[in-house]
Amino acid sequence: MTRIADGRSDDALDALSARVRALEDRLAIYQIVATYGPAIDRADPAAADLWVEDGVYDTYPRVLDGRAEIAAMVDGELHQSLVARGCAHVQTMPQVVVDGDRAVATLHSLLLLREPEQDGFRVWRAAANRWELRREGDGWRITRRTNRLLDGDEAARELLRTS
Amino acid sequence: MTRIADGRSDDALDALSARVRALEDRLAIYQIVATYGPAIDRADPAAADLWVEDGVYDTYPRVLDGRAEIAAMVDGELHQSLVARGCAHVQTMPQVVVDGDRAVATLHSLLLLREPEQDGFRVWRAAANRWELRREGDGWRITRRTNRLLDGDEAARELLRTS
Amino acid sequence: MTRIADGRSDDALDALSARVRALEDRLAIYQIVATYGPAIDRADPAAADLWVEDGVYDTYPRVLDGRAEIAAMVDGELHQSLVARGCAHVQTMPQVVVDGDRAVATLHSLLLLREPEQDGFRVWRAAANRWELRREGDGWRITRRTNRLLDGDEAARELLRTS
Repeated sequence: MTRIADGRSDDALDALSARVRALEDRLAIYQIVATYGPAIDRADPAAADLWVEDGVYDTYPRVLDGRAEIAAMVDGELHQSLVARGCAHVQTMPQVVVDGDRAVATLHSLLLLREPEQDGFRVWRAAANRWELRREGDGWRITRRTNRLLDGDEAARELLRTS
Repeated sequence: MTRIADGRSDDALDALSARVRALEDRLAIYQIVATYGPAIDRADPAAADLWVEDGVYDTYPRVLDGRAEIAAMVDGELHQSLVARGCAHVQTMPQVVVDGDRAVATLHSLLLLREPEQDGFRVWRAAANRWELRREGDGWRITRRTNRLLDGDEAARELLRTS
Repeated sequence: MTRIADGRSDDALDALSARVRALEDRLAIYQIVATYGPAIDRADPAAADLWVEDGVYDTYPRVLDGRAEIAAMVDGELHQSLVARGCAHVQTMPQVVVDGDRAVATLHSLLLLREPEQDGFRVWRAAANRWELRREGDGWRITRRTNRLLDGDEAARELLRTS
């Protein structure tokens, strides 16, 4: 350790840089969560790029395995019909726990569907979410996202357990 | 470049400061988005101060041009009636892209109305949002906010395209 | 003040550290807000640990006084019945104002209940929230959280006033 001036050291700068990186990590993960909803609601298959190449989206009742399957879901008939009807995929601000190059984001997702005859939207789904992420060379990506309907089932509640 | 101690330089401090500023920018924009809902739901015309003086709020079917018109909307009969009935203006955590002194925040907004006979709230509106912001001398402000109902129309989906 | 190299000083590092701490404070408070919903929806009495030992959760029509009462609410019959039916406690991204070792977070909370016969969820409650927090030795905790239904009553609107 080289000390400079009145006792400060490079260590102080390194420590501060590490604190900044911890903040950057959290905000990068916020950004991923906040990017998903707009991307999926404009039916953009690029939403799949939020995942690593072999990332998984485990969403009842389907498990989408890899970016290609996730992109195909976005392009698929069911999703296109939701978008044409009017839908909003809302993700809440996540609880984030970072551990080195891994992280877990815990949050709720809501899927709202337009109901023209009710002059409004129905909350079709409210789901517990666990997003597992990994730091890649160029930023964070999702390795596995699992969500389950909050219908009283224990499985959904377990997803909300971060540790 | 003046090098100090074991090779560190002022450049390191400058670089770190720039990273901190990037984080401050993002959080300042989060704060603006998070301030809007509470301000509008307490019917505070100061909500208009989140915009620059000549800022625009383009909200179907009206375009509010300048702070005075935005404040007048908050004070207006329609908004006052919503507040008296019970309403919640929810904004989601935004995707934020900063480019120098400009930024774009992409998010969903929900407008919930109290429905006493249903013992609950109806999601009246779910809208795609694009907020354009500019760094002013004393912080960020909105230059243009556009939102559109997510009713299947292409215009709403286009708003969700950040680039 | 000891000046080093070409005029930089330790003051610059201190100033930067203070900016980083301000960001850490905000993110710590985001994390508290984002932790509450998942904790309560998995019916985890540890949700009470987000409060200081004698913290208060003033929620219509009850005032829960201290961690033990908050934990008892989570374990209680009403809450357990909501969880068994299927519910989602959604908190929005808060407006945060930090003043030294005190902070106020202003936000909306939504409580959604599963309505199987409607193939969806009802927004049972949409509430104005004021969370008052205090910096403790090991981080921020809630001293008082107050929420009120947004039913047009002035009391709810007043909660949304941060200052």
